Amino acid sequence: MGLIVQKFGGTSVKDAERIFNVAKIVTDTYSAGNDVVVVVSAQGDTTDDLIAKAAEINANPSKREMDVLLSTGEQISISLLAMAIEKLGFPVISLTGRQAGFVTQTNYGNARIKSIDSHRLHRELDKHRIVVVAGFQGLNRFDDITTLGRGGSDTSAVALAAELGADLCQIYTDVDGIYTADPRIVKNAIKLDEISFDEMLELASLGAQVLHNRSVEMAKKYGVNMEVVSSLERKPGTKVKEVVKMEKMLVRGVARDDNVARVAVIGLPDEPGIAFKIFTLMAKKNINVDIILQSIGRHNTKDISFTVPLDQVDTAKEALESQLDVLKAEKIEIADNVSKVSIVGAGMQSNPGVAAKMFEALYENHINIHMISTSEIKISVLIDRKNSEKAMNAIHDAFIG
Amino acid sequence: MGLIVQKFGGTSVKDAERIFNVAKIVTDTYSAGNDVVVVVSAQGDTTDDLIAKAAEINANPSKREMDVLLSTGEQISISLLAMAIEKLGFPVISLTGRQAGFVTQTNYGNARIKSIDSHRLHRELDKHRIVVVAGFQGLNRFDDITTLGRGGSDTSAVALAAELGADLCQIYTDVDGIYTADPRIVKNAIKLDEISFDEMLELASLGAQVLHNRSVEMAKKYGVNMEVVSSLERKPGTKVKEVVKMEKMLVRGVARDDNVARVAVIGLPDEPGIAFKIFTLMAKKNINVDIILQSIGRHNTKDISFTVPLDQVDTAKEALESQLDVLKAEKIEIADNVSKVSIVGAGMQSNPGVAAKMFEALYENHINIHMISTSEIKISVLIDRKNSEKAMNAIHDAFIG
Repeated sequence: MGLIVQKFGGTSVKDAERIFNVAKIVTDTYSAGNDVVVVVSAQGDTTDDLIAKAAEINANPSKREMDVLLSTGEQISISLLAMAIEKLGFPVISLTGRQAGFVTQTNYGNARIKSIDSHRLHRELDKHRIVVVAGFQGLNRFDDITTLGRGGSDTSAVALAAELGADLCQIYTDVDGIYTADPRIVKNAIKLDEISFDEMLELASLGAQVLHNRSVEMAKKYGVNMEVVSSLERKPGTKVKEVVKMEKMLVRGVARDDNVARVAVIGLPDEPGIAFKIFTLMAKKNINVDIILQSIGRHNTKDISFTVPLDQVDTAKEALESQLDVLKAEKIEIADNVSKVSIVGAGMQSNPGVAAKMFEALYENHINIHMISTSEIKISVLIDRKNSEKAMNAIHDAFIG
Repeated sequence: MGLIVQKFGGTSVKDAERIFNVAKIVTDTYSAGNDVVVVVSAQGDTTDDLIAKAAEINANPSKREMDVLLSTGEQISISLLAMAIEKLGFPVISLTGRQAGFVTQTNYGNARIKSIDSHRLHRELDKHRIVVVAGFQGLNRFDDITTLGRGGSDTSAVALAAELGADLCQIYTDVDGIYTADPRIVKNAIKLDEISFDEMLELASLGAQVLHNRSVEMAKKYGVNMEVVSSLERKPGTKVKEVVKMEKMLVRGVARDDNVARVAVIGLPDEPGIAFKIFTLMAKKNINVDIILQSIGRHNTKDISFTVPLDQVDTAKEALESQLDVLKAEKIEIADNVSKVSIVGAGMQSNPGVAAKMFEALYENHINIHMISTSEIKISVLIDRKNSEKAMNAIHDAFIG
């Protein structure tokens, strides 16, 4: 008994059969006495099809017109799902992002939600209707349609849950929850009953399959209880919330990120301002720098190494090489055959043995560590990509079993 | 130099090539120094595809949800056309029906336009942008999306032209204008340079291929100059306006309507109120009655015959047969192998010889006339369908040549 927001992704509504599956989940929740607000994405390949249509006409269309185009995908989904719920005999109404009151920033393609005017939503809920809302879209102050960018529908769902004070925001996916590691790699991976927002955020590379960070950040900020749950099987998923029960399990998950490369700037003069110059350059190119390592080199020089996303490494290399003179650096070295493996767990900080145990597991498997980075709830190591699966299993076995 | 509204139907924007063809017409008009507002329909088969999607889920969906679904078709078109115009290097913006300010009645699926709030349109035109508007759709006072029903995009275009005081409203189609008869049937049919609103309305069965009556009625009401013009060839089309140049041509066109059947109620008592009962019954069933003929029968009885659309004849028959007792009628007879052939021309009324000349042409071709109906600018006859092509040619030759 409460207000539940349920979000279904594109594959969950890809055809009539799957739409009725969603309609059944929604109406069962409603029949159990809950108010239900449903957020849906565009069907299966609709967004890709629309992008292809646009590409045929203009390789570089304005983002505004792309948003006018892409927002039709969710509008199709909401009407079809509403028709399915009608067919099952339940009161329902579909609302576009605009009708649901989503006000966003003015930028197109990747707008942030500024506020939700929930008058219409409340009016429909007061009529005891199931409300089906188009995710991923809103309206900016120019009265123009905007879209929210990747993971936008998750963010729409969490924002609605926050605005309406929902008791739960369920994210339905094709997996049945968050695992301690990718089950395709680590055979002993186990499903978590619950995980904290912070842990979830650190486990981004695991969660990216099911939850977009923006939605988790928003859920944390507004204290929205989330649940990642399967749209195919009726069983409990993984709860994501502020505080989770303390368990013996120090490490909540093991994650791998292959989209990473190491950039080393070799033979820099050992003088102030060098790091500033390098990372200002990276920032100007919009390159996300992760682990940073500075080491003293030979003959009063030093080396600065850092990791960047694999798909940005060429941009980084070019930018640095064009400034070799300014930086007074000797050369740029790239390692693009590396992976970042991380362990995440809220109890980690107060347990000094954790890092040692992780390094031991790697040592025993003859895996060399190139870089190390730690935060309050995470330890990451950069290793050769060819060792990453072995490393994940070794670490998982050491901590989780 | 002026403000021109241009409307393009679904086939005109069915693929990238046709969209660029439209973009070229639009930008040429703009380059010639005009302000241009473009109204587009959904691409080719989009509407049918969306209807099929809905049918898979719910054979009888609510009209509100159908409108949410169907309105995406035009939204896709406006964004794609805007991208094509961008590609050609012109300033452009797309507007949904709502953004263009279309306010409609509350009913779904077949709403009428109540008003247009043209503030946004004026603002965009003031910025010297080409404005691409989604036809066929609006918003009702519940803040819900509505569609305008058949011919809706034509009506959107005419309504915009009226609201903006446009100098011309061009309806682009696959034909190059209005002909004196269907050129596929009457080989001597000639294209009209211009035609009056009233003539156009009477020529509905010709114009239905290119112009919906609702749009012509609206153009007449607000004095909007229309032009039916080809989207494939660059040449003048047919102007539709209030007053046309007087020409020698008395008859503006010959039209045929095959969607017609004759219903005869035989052996009615010759007493008052019978016609009232019959046509009240038809009205209750939403049946459009056209030509009505009452004849004295034998033995103090009379017969009442009338024509109805072919697809409503079964409903009419059932309704009448269920009331045979009340009507005290003998029987119902149906003729569904008939056609209505009409001649239309504003100068007709003041030329008494016109009807005689039409009947003579039919007589000379041994074509029997079942019913006759006349209005100020039209004469219609009901004949056997098998004779309709011969009749059209004979009449066309007699008046137009």
